[in-house]
Amino acid sequence: MMQRFSENPLLTPSDIVPTVPGLVCECLLNPGAFAYGGRVGLLLRVAERPTPEDGWVSTPVLDPACAGGMRILRVRKDDADLVEGDPRVFHYKGRPYLTTLSHLRLAWSDDGVHFTVEDKPLLLGEGAYETFGIEDCRVEFSEGLYWLTYTAVSASGVAVGMISTADWKSFTRHGLIFPPHNKDCALFPEKIAGAYWALHRPSGMGIGGNYIWLARSPDRLHWGGHTCLAATRPGHWDSERVGGGAAPIRTERGWLAIYHGSDENVRYCLGLLLLDLNDPRRVLARSERPILEPEADYERRGFLGDVVFTNGHLVRGDDLTMYYGASDTVICAARTSVSHLLSTLP
Amino acid sequence: MMQRFSENPLLTPSDIVPTVPGLVCECLLNPGAFAYGGRVGLLLRVAERPTPEDGWVSTPVLDPACAGGMRILRVRKDDADLVEGDPRVFHYKGRPYLTTLSHLRLAWSDDGVHFTVEDKPLLLGEGAYETFGIEDCRVEFSEGLYWLTYTAVSASGVAVGMISTADWKSFTRHGLIFPPHNKDCALFPEKIAGAYWALHRPSGMGIGGNYIWLARSPDRLHWGGHTCLAATRPGHWDSERVGGGAAPIRTERGWLAIYHGSDENVRYCLGLLLLDLNDPRRVLARSERPILEPEADYERRGFLGDVVFTNGHLVRGDDLTMYYGASDTVICAARTSVSHLLSTLP
Repeated sequence: MMQRFSENPLLTPSDIVPTVPGLVCECLLNPGAFAYGGRVGLLLRVAERPTPEDGWVSTPVLDPACAGGMRILRVRKDDADLVEGDPRVFHYKGRPYLTTLSHLRLAWSDDGVHFTVEDKPLLLGEGAYETFGIEDCRVEFSEGLYWLTYTAVSASGVAVGMISTADWKSFTRHGLIFPPHNKDCALFPEKIAGAYWALHRPSGMGIGGNYIWLARSPDRLHWGGHTCLAATRPGHWDSERVGGGAAPIRTERGWLAIYHGSDENVRYCLGLLLLDLNDPRRVLARSERPILEPEADYERRGFLGDVVFTNGHLVRGDDLTMYYGASDTVICAARTSVSHLLSTLP
Repeated sequence: MMQRFSENPLLTPSDIVPTVPGLVCECLLNPGAFAYGGRVGLLLRVAERPTPEDGWVSTPVLDPACAGGMRILRVRKDDADLVEGDPRVFHYKGRPYLTTLSHLRLAWSDDGVHFTVEDKPLLLGEGAYETFGIEDCRVEFSEGLYWLTYTAVSASGVAVGMISTADWKSFTRHGLIFPPHNKDCALFPEKIAGAYWALHRPSGMGIGGNYIWLARSPDRLHWGGHTCLAATRPGHWDSERVGGGAAPIRTERGWLAIYHGSDENVRYCLGLLLLDLNDPRRVLARSERPILEPEADYERRGFLGDVVFTNGHLVRGDDLTMYYGASDTVICAARTSVSHLLSTLP
């Protein structure tokens, strides 16, 4: 169904030059994908942590005053002000810290297969809502600009930020377009019925769950008209959480959206939603079975095994190249055709 | 500081005529307050359940085809398709149900003290996002219309819906203005810097918490520019959750917002936030101590004891009458002055 690139994985943590000395790339994840200047760009999520040292807990901390925009916070394990939590979090002097910090970094390719990663971050977390980093960026080109929607992480919560750029050199920050808890935001590539539209993934507490929602906007900055497109399905491969991938693809049958779903074993697969062309609130079809599931060794083993997760693809005519993160560790790609994907839907 | 009405509680569940025979009002909660036609209106949240029967589990279910808009679902306790959860929830044939259902009902008063409750609901939950009812409605009069912002509850989650009315007879439904998980939405009474503004209360998952956020809008329908105004304060009376009350009040020192906070014992008190008049994203002051805490017997004992919660008040000059729910069971009021509240802030 999806044909994995024989060159997979295309990029691994060893391809990453650390942002500052003393850091190491722990996970390379979930790239946004776009075309620019005749090349293919991937906007990688790079998760870094300090090289472990016996007797110390440490983490990268964003600090614009430091070279590279980061410094390393080191705390002795016997420090009375340290409270260790699960492996991803600790508290020091009453403040929470994540043990890794994610930023967004560019990789470029002439053939869409062989990528060169830039030596420095493109975008670091900035301001009060990104103190724990920025993650999983979708890139959509529309009306002359690239629109970046990404997960902004801070002590205030996990929310969706937006940045635009024309040239990948200067950037306009638009703040948070969805409040916590929200992620997996993908803009549609064009207006529908006079409005902008986006998939997003809020989370329920007690009632509801990790479902895919749709919102509309007059200006991409302010969002409303929220409707729930796809809930989890008990007993299915997408029983625990679902979330949108990159921008839905216009096809003759409707808007084709690739989404991820995970089950109670935290196994992440990919499937399809088909939405009405003129009213994307109408779901026309949904995959019964995954279109891609973790089977290759690099998808089954890693920082978090049994994960395939996509938030970037490129479409040329009927050809679709999907870039994806595997096992939260490496960057891969697979190809298929839009017509084939449509043929799998009822 | 706040002077409780000697007539408290003003309304109790026994004042409620059940929506359909066989129901009983379990809780009377958290009224929105407004002035209309020379009278004071309260928009009550009425939570109903069927009269308990040995050997049966039952709940009200919204059904527009039935008289009163509701029917009662009764399931034998030994039914193989029944899965009972905590006292508020059960599952039947794989679908979740709440054991109570809330609607909004009007009560009217000439003096703001003695209220007569209408015999029938004003607004029932409607459509896919209100199947488990509507709750805790704020009412704000602006530009010739009353704007109702309320909690919409369904299997898709807990979100914020909006309805407008000019005459309390015909209503326009505007759908969900904030996606799950969100509640405690209060519109500001006027535009600031060319935009509409609202307090809202999203919730974090893992990172973040139950914090008060601010959003802006060009049209009240689409919201963005999200900023976090007030987080919980460890060791304080508002250590676990905070949420906005009714519309912030314009004062010479800034926008005065009454909010609720609860601690680890689920004890709900009320406090104040003061926001910059021209840029409400700027928090100028916040109560160190509550302005009202559960002390009266009717605030300490009930369906959920130790709760005072407000989402409705009326301001006439310097006089402020605050209506509030006590112990999730009865409706009360207290009076104070705006100048006194301001004097309590640093």
